[in-house]
Amino acid sequence: MFFEGSEKKIELQIKPGSISLRALPLQFWHQALSLANAEILSNLSNDYCDAYVLSESSLFVWEHKLLLMTCGNTRLIDTVVFIIEKLGTDHISDVSYQRKSEFLSHLQSTRFEDDIDRLPIALAGKAYRIGHLDTHHHYLFHSNQTQQLQGSASLLMYHIKGEVADYLRQASQTSTQIRRLLALDSLLPEFTFDDHLFEPFGYSINGLFEDKFITIHITPQERSSYVSVETNLDFIQHPFNIFSALLNILNPSSWDTIGLNMQIANLGFPSHRRLASCDLQLNQFNGFNYNHYTQADTEILLAEVL
Amino acid sequence: MFFEGSEKKIELQIKPGSISLRALPLQFWHQALSLANAEILSNLSNDYCDAYVLSESSLFVWEHKLLLMTCGNTRLIDTVVFIIEKLGTDHISDVSYQRKSEFLSHLQSTRFEDDIDRLPIALAGKAYRIGHLDTHHHYLFHSNQTQQLQGSASLLMYHIKGEVADYLRQASQTSTQIRRLLALDSLLPEFTFDDHLFEPFGYSINGLFEDKFITIHITPQERSSYVSVETNLDFIQHPFNIFSALLNILNPSSWDTIGLNMQIANLGFPSHRRLASCDLQLNQFNGFNYNHYTQADTEILLAEVL
Repeated sequence: MFFEGSEKKIELQIKPGSISLRALPLQFWHQALSLANAEILSNLSNDYCDAYVLSESSLFVWEHKLLLMTCGNTRLIDTVVFIIEKLGTDHISDVSYQRKSEFLSHLQSTRFEDDIDRLPIALAGKAYRIGHLDTHHHYLFHSNQTQQLQGSASLLMYHIKGEVADYLRQASQTSTQIRRLLALDSLLPEFTFDDHLFEPFGYSINGLFEDKFITIHITPQERSSYVSVETNLDFIQHPFNIFSALLNILNPSSWDTIGLNMQIANLGFPSHRRLASCDLQLNQFNGFNYNHYTQADTEILLAEVL
Repeated sequence: MFFEGSEKKIELQIKPGSISLRALPLQFWHQALSLANAEILSNLSNDYCDAYVLSESSLFVWEHKLLLMTCGNTRLIDTVVFIIEKLGTDHISDVSYQRKSEFLSHLQSTRFEDDIDRLPIALAGKAYRIGHLDTHHHYLFHSNQTQQLQGSASLLMYHIKGEVADYLRQASQTSTQIRRLLALDSLLPEFTFDDHLFEPFGYSINGLFEDKFITIHITPQERSSYVSVETNLDFIQHPFNIFSALLNILNPSSWDTIGLNMQIANLGFPSHRRLASCDLQLNQFNGFNYNHYTQADTEILLAEVL
């Protein structure tokens, strides 16, 4: 029942006044995604963005920006190389590529270091690992940037527990009930949502409001549960903390926050210990931060019989 | 400069009144170890035990007990299968096989699950994983036991820091100075030691006192440092805590303790948080415990440029 929830993620910025990503035909995305063994399951659009729920995570396409996340053992880098080649590096101003440490890294068909070696020289940049190899760590590549990127925030939750977690693992679930349990309509009333419930379980949801997005992916598997939340909502403009709310609903044993040009306050987080922290100035325009938390109490581990 | 310090470990018990392991010729151990690509670098004997420092960790041979640990990408299971076949399962009362989660598991040529599948049916038992896949975890196989095994205790330290750690990484070191920095002669005055200093660095030491042993293996590499300590010293008979002393000397960011029929008090440990704990009753005779600690302060991570 193991499924690798940890995502690989690419963000591309198109030069202003250059090509429009939204003008590309749907066939282009089908073809690009097929290289990563991912397909489009559902879509949602507004005036700013086309959002796709994929068989493995999500794709967001704005006029001049692309965000693509894939989980499992997808070869995202194949899709990335295809997209960059088709668009042409002249039209691309910035690339960011990230990978979270996997639960079972030996099952992955590529490593981060191999992936970034395949990016074109025209998009040269710097690669980092944040965090120790023996615990949560995060790989990050940023091409040499010439502008401030839009802020974004990620919350990665591990080992969810409690009533909502139990529901997400049970045999008969509904999207409506999951959405209700996650309280999304009350937390984000302006948003429009598009979701997909996987068999036998697993849940993905994209949300849009003007140029803002949120995407949540739930891998509820008992011994390797993982939930990712990613958004470009401005936490200063929106004083409520959607991350705190979801942490209290899903009650993970540990979690990471990742911010690009955004500080993620831990006000309202469940009682916790902050084990590790990193603030990284990528260049004069952009800053990255990473924090690793566990619940405050010592976790009583159950030995898993193999 | 990466080296996988995490060990695989086998313990074999020979039935009382059966064959003597110490009577086996040295050639037998050479042949067995060559299957794991390990070789004997040095040896030390007393009335109870033959202790060997290996190119990858250590081998201890008592009359009716064997303890073999190997690190790196060794195929310990090949050696184990060879030894069991040569000795014959009729002479073996108990087998315990353990693997610590590796820093870079994708570089390993075998997985724990594959390893234990190769153990003979005559030595059937139970296999467990203790700890989550995304952080420190420990694999454990114990054959069905009919007796209480001798107690043992392990301390696994990650990311050592400070003056002693710096010395262990510097270009010119001496065994004498390392032994002095670890304070082994004053901590364990009755013990006789045998050590080996690796090039460019890395240090292994075995110690014996009557039927008691201690073995310490140091992988000091800056970004993936790891130190293991294993002993059958009885912490109740010996009220001082060698683990506390070594923790204070080597100052790791995080550490695990593992006890078999032995509780490992954390009195004197550096200021810490106990993140996770497991007590596992293997059967009516034997109990296993695991604890995962980090230092009390939030660790400020440095981004490693790749």
